[in-house]
Amino acid sequence: MIGRQPKPILKAIAAALSVVTLGTLPLITYAVQHDAPYLALAKENYRQWIQQNTQIDRKLVALQQRFKKRPNIIYILTDDIGWGELGWQGGGKHRGTPSPELDKMAFEGMRFWAAYAEPSCTPTRIALNTGRHPVRTGMLSVLWPGQPEGLSPKEVTIAEVLKKAGYETAMWGKWHLGELETYAPENQGYDYAYYGLYNGAPYAWPDAAKMYQGKSPPGSAMFYDFPGEKQYKKVTGVRLSPGFYEGHKGGKRKPVHEVSQQGLVEFESESARQLITWVRAKARSDKPFFIYWASYAQQVAGVPEYQHKAYVDARNAQSSFMLRHNRHVRSLLETLLELKIAQNTLVIWYSDNGPMYGFWPTAGYSWLRGAKGDVYEGGVRVPAMAWWPGMIAPNQDPVDMIHVTDLYTTAARIAGAMTYIPSDRVVDGIDQTPLLLLGEGHGRRNYMFHYSGPFLQAVRWDNFKLHIKPRGPPVEVYNIMRDPGEKHGKLYSYSFTVTPFQNLVKNHKLMIRKYPHRVSRITPPGAAITPHD
Amino acid sequence: MIGRQPKPILKAIAAALSVVTLGTLPLITYAVQHDAPYLALAKENYRQWIQQNTQIDRKLVALQQRFKKRPNIIYILTDDIGWGELGWQGGGKHRGTPSPELDKMAFEGMRFWAAYAEPSCTPTRIALNTGRHPVRTGMLSVLWPGQPEGLSPKEVTIAEVLKKAGYETAMWGKWHLGELETYAPENQGYDYAYYGLYNGAPYAWPDAAKMYQGKSPPGSAMFYDFPGEKQYKKVTGVRLSPGFYEGHKGGKRKPVHEVSQQGLVEFESESARQLITWVRAKARSDKPFFIYWASYAQQVAGVPEYQHKAYVDARNAQSSFMLRHNRHVRSLLETLLELKIAQNTLVIWYSDNGPMYGFWPTAGYSWLRGAKGDVYEGGVRVPAMAWWPGMIAPNQDPVDMIHVTDLYTTAARIAGAMTYIPSDRVVDGIDQTPLLLLGEGHGRRNYMFHYSGPFLQAVRWDNFKLHIKPRGPPVEVYNIMRDPGEKHGKLYSYSFTVTPFQNLVKNHKLMIRKYPHRVSRITPPGAAITPHD
Repeated sequence: MIGRQPKPILKAIAAALSVVTLGTLPLITYAVQHDAPYLALAKENYRQWIQQNTQIDRKLVALQQRFKKRPNIIYILTDDIGWGELGWQGGGKHRGTPSPELDKMAFEGMRFWAAYAEPSCTPTRIALNTGRHPVRTGMLSVLWPGQPEGLSPKEVTIAEVLKKAGYETAMWGKWHLGELETYAPENQGYDYAYYGLYNGAPYAWPDAAKMYQGKSPPGSAMFYDFPGEKQYKKVTGVRLSPGFYEGHKGGKRKPVHEVSQQGLVEFESESARQLITWVRAKARSDKPFFIYWASYAQQVAGVPEYQHKAYVDARNAQSSFMLRHNRHVRSLLETLLELKIAQNTLVIWYSDNGPMYGFWPTAGYSWLRGAKGDVYEGGVRVPAMAWWPGMIAPNQDPVDMIHVTDLYTTAARIAGAMTYIPSDRVVDGIDQTPLLLLGEGHGRRNYMFHYSGPFLQAVRWDNFKLHIKPRGPPVEVYNIMRDPGEKHGKLYSYSFTVTPFQNLVKNHKLMIRKYPHRVSRITPPGAAITPHD
Repeated sequence: MIGRQPKPILKAIAAALSVVTLGTLPLITYAVQHDAPYLALAKENYRQWIQQNTQIDRKLVALQQRFKKRPNIIYILTDDIGWGELGWQGGGKHRGTPSPELDKMAFEGMRFWAAYAEPSCTPTRIALNTGRHPVRTGMLSVLWPGQPEGLSPKEVTIAEVLKKAGYETAMWGKWHLGELETYAPENQGYDYAYYGLYNGAPYAWPDAAKMYQGKSPPGSAMFYDFPGEKQYKKVTGVRLSPGFYEGHKGGKRKPVHEVSQQGLVEFESESARQLITWVRAKARSDKPFFIYWASYAQQVAGVPEYQHKAYVDARNAQSSFMLRHNRHVRSLLETLLELKIAQNTLVIWYSDNGPMYGFWPTAGYSWLRGAKGDVYEGGVRVPAMAWWPGMIAPNQDPVDMIHVTDLYTTAARIAGAMTYIPSDRVVDGIDQTPLLLLGEGHGRRNYMFHYSGPFLQAVRWDNFKLHIKPRGPPVEVYNIMRDPGEKHGKLYSYSFTVTPFQNLVKNHKLMIRKYPHRVSRITPPGAAITPHD
């Protein structure tokens, strides 16, 4: 609840929070360069936001006094898990992929029905790490083995921001932001990294090639299409590199598992094991920690020993990976509780994009229209949960929307590291600490831009979403709240949505002109693999 | 948990429960004539079911000793609320129609993700009242004003069954099982009835006609298409009858509200008020009660005073009806708690079918494929909850499937009235008391028949569903657990599903030959309105 605040105190608080002016009104910006629609929103909600920020600061200060350090932050990003796939969403055991521990986490904290990501995996990883839409970073789409692109070292990752604020940083899992060492996590702000270069598919290829060459494979497009390792090299010129590495900041990385399905399974287990060991080691450190755990759950690989006999039919590989992931997440949460640092640790679980039906029936699923790669809700709307005992009230399900870029800015805010976010570029991520700590209605988004590669393909404003299509009808407008399945476009093509969308896009583009995108490097076929910026 | 039972005791229990023989194995049938697939299932699970029945009987006997009567039963049936529309399913406030009290009820009891109804409203009302698929009763589809059909007096309603077991019976809401007095609820087993003859649409017609004649109406097909009362009479020969009645068993009914949108709103409020008064009056009676409350929530009519400002956009009429319904349901549950009879009262909330997109945007919604009228999941899979403090453990979400006909048989079982179910006809409803009282995995269905009018259009066996189509590809097979959206039919058209489906349909049809359907009376245009059997 927002009470009235006498003006002089309000001014003093505003001043204390490094206020700058925009137009005629003072705004809390921490020097972060937000996009135009956010600035407009901030202007509109100026008084409430100042008051909310004060409430949040009080909570964070009290916590810091208790634990003698800033909160730890753990981000768990998962793979291709669609909106509707967890048990609390009617998926889970109801769809043959039980998720009991993730559901428990969801009810112990805040579960999001309106969390958004970029439409595919590399882009979402860029967004989380940089707080920016990938289009701004010059890296636009999913990376495949042999591509020389990677996350520009000029981008400032969340690990780099938090390091400056005194955090210890580590990542496990699917990096997928470039094969070359220059793009590697240990060179992008992470003290320690244990990571895979590719998405799940290439890890299964060699095995699949061995198993199915010349035979009819089971119903998976990926298994079916892969020509075998040798043929792949012949056609693409690319030899699959050792896919898994361990790296220390400033050191030389070393390969750790072979590129195979079994290698992937071992890597995932070893990641969970290391992660918990690391948490134990750092629990009593005087420095807080940041962990980015980009789990491979659920991709196409299955883990036979985790097959869940009660619910799973034989063709369902990812249910086994999901159950294993469940156990890993629960172990992590139990470890935090056991070490008595749970109340000083924010854990957010997020999926990277919608399901990939290309692998059906060994694939994810969504109740919504579209899939991985689409800007329809099925591609970008994902399950997510936040868990922080004592700080996030249990069993909340806010209507507010959040975007994966928000994880960047929110982490910086909680870490007291907002000043380390560079101000020479636009950051799309919004600080959602108010939503986490004050609950429903305190989200700070009423807009979203959905890019696919270099193209702005959809814009969200309030309950409405405009699709921009180069072919077919020039626009489709949906009321996403009333029609999340995007079935009834025509009825909402009303004139009252035109002006808000025009303004949003115009101001967004003006901002891009002021802060241009990093130049995209598209690899010409057969090009040598050399780093770019 | 099912423990081992020494054989002599098992036999004694079986004998005590009026066991008859089928083939070589004794079976508990209570003389109910189930369909063939159920008999096969019962044979297969004979031992476990006997043991479970014993457990249930112990619970019910203990309860009866405490309350000195059988449990009260309240069935709440609602209108066109799609799978996904309640808050616990990601609908509710997230879709602009907050359902806080229904969600609370869901988490206080058992929430069903796999509850099924008939594909439209009259058929589901027949199914609940008779425990039979409508096709068996000779009444096949939705009734419109002026049609002479109705629920045959030869059908034995759940109210008639429970009356024989000493229950007091009452109904409020949308009867929709025939206009003539002979078909009316007070003549079909209900001691008291306060009911509407039509679905929600005709009640809105006169108002709509007044408001929009000659003008462009808002985006609702129903408002748009209705030609006005006079024109309707001219074209159809039908004068809208007084739509709402009050009836007492053995008495002459009297009209109670006018056919108008305001009449509908008043009727709904008055129903909730009466219902609670009735519960208060009967709470200390030595007889248990049965209430069938067929609420009009949510149909197209809106209730302006209940508009929920925080979430609702102006076009969203049913959200106001939904909020009002929320309040009604909560008042009812609170009344039961206050009177200390909640532990002796089973409350089940069920939707009658999927959403009716024809009224979009003033319409319901579903995450699934299809809508009201379809046998795709969107048409027949509906939200449902069961609430019974002390008897149904809170916060359960079983994977088991249930069908609306099961409400019939379950009520009879709980009421100790199984022997009053006639044995000269097939009853499709299955006793789901084991699921309610023993929890997940105790459901007694692995099959379902989905009829549309006279046609068997889909068959469910285990996780699989076969669509039978007169045109197009002859069959589609979906794995409903993996693919509830019915998107990936082809992959599952595997040979291993052929035999089970052939057997199911063959045995189902053999049973129909033995127990033929009641003859359907299709009204010839312009026929006089006379009762039929």
